[in-house]
Amino acid sequence: MPDPTRRSERSRAAILTATLDLLQESGYADLTVEKIAARAGVGKQTIYRWWSGRGAVVLDALVDQIGPAGPPPLPDTGDLEADLRLVVRAIVAELADPRLSVTTRALTIETLTSETFAETMRDRLLRPQLDTIKERLRGRVRDDVDLDQAVELLIGPMYHRWMMRTGPLTEAYADGIVDLALAALRPRQL
Amino acid sequence: MPDPTRRSERSRAAILTATLDLLQESGYADLTVEKIAARAGVGKQTIYRWWSGRGAVVLDALVDQIGPAGPPPLPDTGDLEADLRLVVRAIVAELADPRLSVTTRALTIETLTSETFAETMRDRLLRPQLDTIKERLRGRVRDDVDLDQAVELLIGPMYHRWMMRTGPLTEAYADGIVDLALAALRPRQL
Repeated sequence: MPDPTRRSERSRAAILTATLDLLQESGYADLTVEKIAARAGVGKQTIYRWWSGRGAVVLDALVDQIGPAGPPPLPDTGDLEADLRLVVRAIVAELADPRLSVTTRALTIETLTSETFAETMRDRLLRPQLDTIKERLRGRVRDDVDLDQAVELLIGPMYHRWMMRTGPLTEAYADGIVDLALAALRPRQL
Repeated sequence: MPDPTRRSERSRAAILTATLDLLQESGYADLTVEKIAARAGVGKQTIYRWWSGRGAVVLDALVDQIGPAGPPPLPDTGDLEADLRLVVRAIVAELADPRLSVTTRALTIETLTSETFAETMRDRLLRPQLDTIKERLRGRVRDDVDLDQAVELLIGPMYHRWMMRTGPLTEAYADGIVDLALAALRPRQL
């Protein structure tokens, strides 16, 4: 007897894989539920039974990739500047690469388009990632600094430059972000 | 005899006004070239003769609003902190109001969707606005700070919070941005 649960799981995995593959191959503007269904070998109605649209499928594919334990904590060598440099360089490199940043682009478009999507994306994908930075900063920055604003000081500028295409996304740029943020965040010397 | 140039100018003005009105009334997801044409009393083909799509019309409407002289320079009272506080509070208040930020939302979606649009938007609308902040900071921040990064330090965090809906957009938040940015940017005391 066929096992419907196992069949569902196989279809779900095929849909998520097809979605990320198609995104890599031709970008978000060309991604449609029709194409995902064709590539995954399922009917369109199967996708619409589980997801509201292509953005929701992309989000699930990424949450699946990270796994149920959530994103790993940031490195902690005891040297905050060195650790942040590694992390910010990695994010800048990802944003600079159109193949790697295609999923972030897709999720940002959906976030701007739908308030419901924005909340799901924030709670399931973004907040856990921002929290890894927040935890690394906790207790290591000026007492009067709001930790959410401290995280945004690191993250906001590079997303703005990436989105708006206002400047190069290089390692030197990444290091400049860390220098500026730490100048703002470090406990003031007496 | 009818004057075709004047008629074109009237149609163009009607299209730009209709676009901003419709955006205010029902948001970008509902905005179509069909609806703009109907409201402006022109044919769809008139719009497509002059613009590539709805995003390009929104951009032109905003550039027109600012006028050929470009955005006005920032206030300069001699008190950098007070001046930045006014500017950042104004931007945060605009982002916090869905009616005021609907055009920014529309342009950001198109910017993420099309590289060509992104470049036009950056050069015609965004860069002149960022440059008003850059000119205000010039000569008033640490010598070793890149001025483009200094502007992003003020602008990037609030756009990230607005887009991602990760926190309140209040006056206290705006003041926190200015405090952090100035802590990073001010010449170090010896």
